[in-house]
Amino acid sequence: MKLGTHSFIRELSTIHLIVLFYLTAVLISGVLLGLPFLHQSGVDVSFIDTLFTAVSAVSVTGLTVVSTAETFNAAGKIVLAVILQFGGIGIMTLGTFVWLIFGRKIGLRGRQLIRIDQNRSTFSGLVKLMINILKIILTIELFGTIILSTYFLHYFDTWQEALLQGFFGAVSATTNAGFDITGSSLMPFAHDYFVQFINMILLILGAIGFPVLIELKALLSSRGDSLYPNHHFSLFTKLTSVTFFSLLAAGWGLIYFFERNAFLMDKAWHEKLFYSLFQSVTTRNGGLSTMDVSDFTIPTLLVICALMFIGASPSSVGGGIRTTTFAIMLLSIFNYAKGNSSIKLFRREVDPEDIYRSFIVITTATMLCGSAMVLLATTEPFSLIEIIFEVCSAFGTTGLSMGITSELSMFGKCIIIFLMFVGRIGIFSFLFLMRGTETNDLYHQPKEKVIIG
Amino acid sequence: MKLGTHSFIRELSTIHLIVLFYLTAVLISGVLLGLPFLHQSGVDVSFIDTLFTAVSAVSVTGLTVVSTAETFNAAGKIVLAVILQFGGIGIMTLGTFVWLIFGRKIGLRGRQLIRIDQNRSTFSGLVKLMINILKIILTIELFGTIILSTYFLHYFDTWQEALLQGFFGAVSATTNAGFDITGSSLMPFAHDYFVQFINMILLILGAIGFPVLIELKALLSSRGDSLYPNHHFSLFTKLTSVTFFSLLAAGWGLIYFFERNAFLMDKAWHEKLFYSLFQSVTTRNGGLSTMDVSDFTIPTLLVICALMFIGASPSSVGGGIRTTTFAIMLLSIFNYAKGNSSIKLFRREVDPEDIYRSFIVITTATMLCGSAMVLLATTEPFSLIEIIFEVCSAFGTTGLSMGITSELSMFGKCIIIFLMFVGRIGIFSFLFLMRGTETNDLYHQPKEKVIIG
Ligand SMILES: [K+]
Ligand SMILES: [K+]
Repeated sequence: MKLGTHSFIRELSTIHLIVLFYLTAVLISGVLLGLPFLHQSGVDVSFIDTLFTAVSAVSVTGLTVVSTAETFNAAGKIVLAVILQFGGIGIMTLGTFVWLIFGRKIGLRGRQLIRIDQNRSTFSGLVKLMINILKIILTIELFGTIILSTYFLHYFDTWQEALLQGFFGAVSATTNAGFDITGSSLMPFAHDYFVQFINMILLILGAIGFPVLIELKALLSSRGDSLYPNHHFSLFTKLTSVTFFSLLAAGWGLIYFFERNAFLMDKAWHEKLFYSLFQSVTTRNGGLSTMDVSDFTIPTLLVICALMFIGASPSSVGGGIRTTTFAIMLLSIFNYAKGNSSIKLFRREVDPEDIYRSFIVITTATMLCGSAMVLLATTEPFSLIEIIFEVCSAFGTTGLSMGITSELSMFGKCIIIFLMFVGRIGIFSFLFLMRGTETNDLYHQPKEKVIIG
Repeated sequence: MKLGTHSFIRELSTIHLIVLFYLTAVLISGVLLGLPFLHQSGVDVSFIDTLFTAVSAVSVTGLTVVSTAETFNAAGKIVLAVILQFGGIGIMTLGTFVWLIFGRKIGLRGRQLIRIDQNRSTFSGLVKLMINILKIILTIELFGTIILSTYFLHYFDTWQEALLQGFFGAVSATTNAGFDITGSSLMPFAHDYFVQFINMILLILGAIGFPVLIELKALLSSRGDSLYPNHHFSLFTKLTSVTFFSLLAAGWGLIYFFERNAFLMDKAWHEKLFYSLFQSVTTRNGGLSTMDVSDFTIPTLLVICALMFIGASPSSVGGGIRTTTFAIMLLSIFNYAKGNSSIKLFRREVDPEDIYRSFIVITTATMLCGSAMVLLATTEPFSLIEIIFEVCSAFGTTGLSMGITSELSMFGKCIIIFLMFVGRIGIFSFLFLMRGTETNDLYHQPKEKVIIG
């Protein structure tokens, strides 16, 4: 078994560049969001809160230390929506788009940048892929904006306000950003199934992963796409879709089960079902909420924490360890217990290196989040479950909170900023970042077994 | 990379037999501990509490639902000590011993049984190994009993009581059982550094792992042992010892750091140092305590939980995921981040299958304990930290508790019994147990990569 991949030096500098891009995006976003004329009159935001908002926006997490609705004016909200767009689709993708617009051909270096960021394993057709991603996301957001804005004419006094709310809502949902300009997430629409339904669709389309959308589009448009001839779904699309919807169903069932005699007790049967469904969808990565999560019981909160930690599909707008990582871990354990020497699914075999990567990602993420919990428990005066919830939400870039975000100390905010950043770039890039100089791996030592477990 | 080992069918039936042995031990222990004439007069113990005590004793965990001091009479306490002895050294080891006494040669099957239970990778010299283990453990316990009993003459009125306390204390410490017959663990000796020092030595000798003791003995006795010629320490001994003492030092430092201005605030400097040292040693697996752990702050409790979850060395009296498992995970992550394709340490290379096993053990254990926490949070009225602590203590067979054990519901007790059992037999045997009929692993499918993390 190989521990590493074939081209470390190349990937190393590539990931350094990606991180540099993200940091630049955070910097620019921070400066923009700090501009006084984008704020409501009389509002003053501290440096750490501006930085926090910028990281939360670029990583499309949605944790907030200031109220978006009350801090930013209409122009500020539009700027924020644009930042979410950048963050959600990925700076690399947009970078490619800008390059295309400026008429420059994308060289090998540029392709590498995008390949790592979206984690695609194939080089071919990358430019086409990027254009496809942009087309698809903008189309989804356009439809979302039209539907929501039209519908919001009933809710808001002016068509301008309805349009702003519809536009921001569609972008925030599709990018799974979780930011809201209503002042209380989707709670004003807690009884409006239509708004929630549209939001769920947008959330799922954003979190299911771009490759899935592209393969779906290729299938739906019924014309041969050079990337995916004969409409064969890739192993990735099958695996991530099955995992995504399994997690969604599991979350739905568990939240319903744990809350049926607690938070959901006084609700009608259709409300019970719909509320727990929406909550499960939003933990996949959205972070929008129709109710106060701190009203839930501890078992529900723990389940939500686990779901947020797992997060969305790779190559999506979401964070966490990602669905495929979790699925491959489960399959590995199952196959190991069965005594199989390989993982077979959908008439394919999983690459051993992918298995190894999964375990590296999961264990690193667990230790990272565990350490963050211990640190926050040291400095913050909140209950353990509130801290665990905040950590999982930040790492999964989900953005749900039991309400402690704005009350965190400076140190606590820094920890959450760090988690959002790592959650967004992924454990994988994070580990590459940790890498020092080139290592000496050319010689071998005799192998010796030790006793495990 | 191979997912499995070479001889599944053989190991499968072997592990089934081991579990059968353990279950038989629990059954016999349960019947013995339920005998009324071993109880103090007037004491009545329910079925579930007897079962709980039996599992806790056989798995040398030390979690208790009834007070050992007030429930059992002197004869009962001696029976309990014998059960701890059986559990601690391992039923397989004693089984071998009985076979030897009865003059039967140990066949291949018998050797296999011991091999898996103590997880040794080599067949040769097994009988000799077993005799060595017994000699070493009994010698340690003999010295412990003599020293403690003599010293206890100052503490107790009669020499019989001093001898009983010394004997039980030495056995409980060496087997890391954590049971006490003082009624309040080592708290009566909270200010007696000598008793604590002797206990720490015994706890460490029991938890460091039998192979380490045997290699140490071979070194100390300065004569060539056919098993370990020329006193080369094995990779296992080096790895587990370094990990064991690193964890001990980390626990010492962190507990001191987190509690220096809290629980330890009013203590003298030597008390601060000694208390945190003893607490760190006892989390390695002992479960004895000189203070009420529920007085600690949340960060300390979380650190203790992590240390208990990791547990002791493999092939020791302890449970958890084991030290080597944890060490190999850390080394894997470090080497992966560095871009190395293998793990080199002490001029040896770690076997890739051991790496894979480590990850399987850790992720399975994490999910098992996580599920247990969610279930207990559903049925038990205790705080989250109390539940997390109890789960980690049971899985690590440590036996520390924030005091909720005896108040658990029937369902809660069953969960803890299950965790103690799995913690003792190890995740590895547990996974083998889950295995169904033989699997079809002869054909291959084309490999396809997916996107991870
Ligand atoms: K989010
Ligand atoms: K113990």
